[in-house]
Amino acid sequence: MTVALEVIAVEGMGEVRPGDDVAALIAAAAQLEQGDVVVVTQKIVSKAEGRLVPVDDDDPESRLTVIADESVRVLRRRDELVISETRHGFICANAGVDLSNVDSGWATLLPVDADRSARRIRDGLVKLTGARVAVVVSDTFGRPWRRGVTDVAIGCAGLAPVVDLRGTPDDRGRVLVATEVCVVDEIASAAELVMGKASGVPVAVVRGVDQTWFRHGSVRDEVVRSPGEDLFR
Amino acid sequence: MTVALEVIAVEGMGEVRPGDDVAALIAAAAQLEQGDVVVVTQKIVSKAEGRLVPVDDDDPESRLTVIADESVRVLRRRDELVISETRHGFICANAGVDLSNVDSGWATLLPVDADRSARRIRDGLVKLTGARVAVVVSDTFGRPWRRGVTDVAIGCAGLAPVVDLRGTPDDRGRVLVATEVCVVDEIASAAELVMGKASGVPVAVVRGVDQTWFRHGSVRDEVVRSPGEDLFR
Repeated sequence: MTVALEVIAVEGMGEVRPGDDVAALIAAAAQLEQGDVVVVTQKIVSKAEGRLVPVDDDDPESRLTVIADESVRVLRRRDELVISETRHGFICANAGVDLSNVDSGWATLLPVDADRSARRIRDGLVKLTGARVAVVVSDTFGRPWRRGVTDVAIGCAGLAPVVDLRGTPDDRGRVLVATEVCVVDEIASAAELVMGKASGVPVAVVRGVDQTWFRHGSVRDEVVRSPGEDLFR
Repeated sequence: MTVALEVIAVEGMGEVRPGDDVAALIAAAAQLEQGDVVVVTQKIVSKAEGRLVPVDDDDPESRLTVIADESVRVLRRRDELVISETRHGFICANAGVDLSNVDSGWATLLPVDADRSARRIRDGLVKLTGARVAVVVSDTFGRPWRRGVTDVAIGCAGLAPVVDLRGTPDDRGRVLVATEVCVVDEIASAAELVMGKASGVPVAVVRGVDQTWFRHGSVRDEVVRSPGEDLFR
């Protein structure tokens, strides 16, 4: 057995505030190496980018107004839960509007363009550390049919989000069909296992990822399904 | 930074045939330690359990008949692709009927009860190695709204599939809502990153998983949503 992958929690980053340089905070807290994938939770990216809005904690309508502003279409609604499509094309609960781990009276919104956020952080990390790394911005989404949330990627930089193994022969020499693997979501999920939800670890490093996956990539362009090809919209 | 998780490909297991003892094959190929989570792909579990049916490679109807037999309900159909609900309650492409990595003229079906499959493998591993390990049986599913497939769990043993962090205060002392994390799916995804699709590595070990998650668990009982609570069925 050979170790193939390490998933490492980056501790000691401290609080992130609007205007903070996320790349600088990560570079100071982590010992990055060439080929690392740095997974950064949406929460600190949104905070650094000032994507915060005031909400009235005692008035549910206040939150629903924000969710409506962030949505282009509501798919389902049950009680307090709204499943909607954001302007990025993500389908998730409450349009990504999040009250957890922010000061009372505030909510975070998703970054305007999480691929761009990832690129900025990546550019900063490459400059500060000299290491060729990739960056994934992750968020916690529910899914239909299965209970429990998992972390997925909402943005990436320097990494192929989907690796196309179509046409690669299987071990029988028969041709595989429909095996485009969304490695960026699998990386976000792996990172979540060491970050937990309330332990204050907003960044993890995934070390040992296949280096052939390192290239320019975009979650919005390559992972978000267009309505025309989507059987469930 | 401290290493929190290792994901290790188990190589050299060789071909799995009907009647093979999967636990014995894994125990011989891997050096398992107390607290490891052993992720086993559905394909070898199905082969060992003899869940193979003949299909006529030249006749698409042959495959569709098998898919119909494995389905309780078809949700969507486009060209060759059928999204259906299996009798286990999984919603996936082609009811889990798979032609890849099997001999020409054959397809694998999902295990009858993948939680039971996981329990059998776990019992065997505990007996053979003396190590308290957990087992996850994984398969590759697509999802709505996002391109690319990811690995999820279809069965587990010795592990909580969903970890309930609801009611755990966030780092502001505010109460988190709806943060039941499906760790078993995240573990399956992490494992897939080292297994690839055509590299003949059907088992991976995830080492360093939070030991408080080790308990009796079932994917079918705890992950599969009942139709009544599902907003997308």
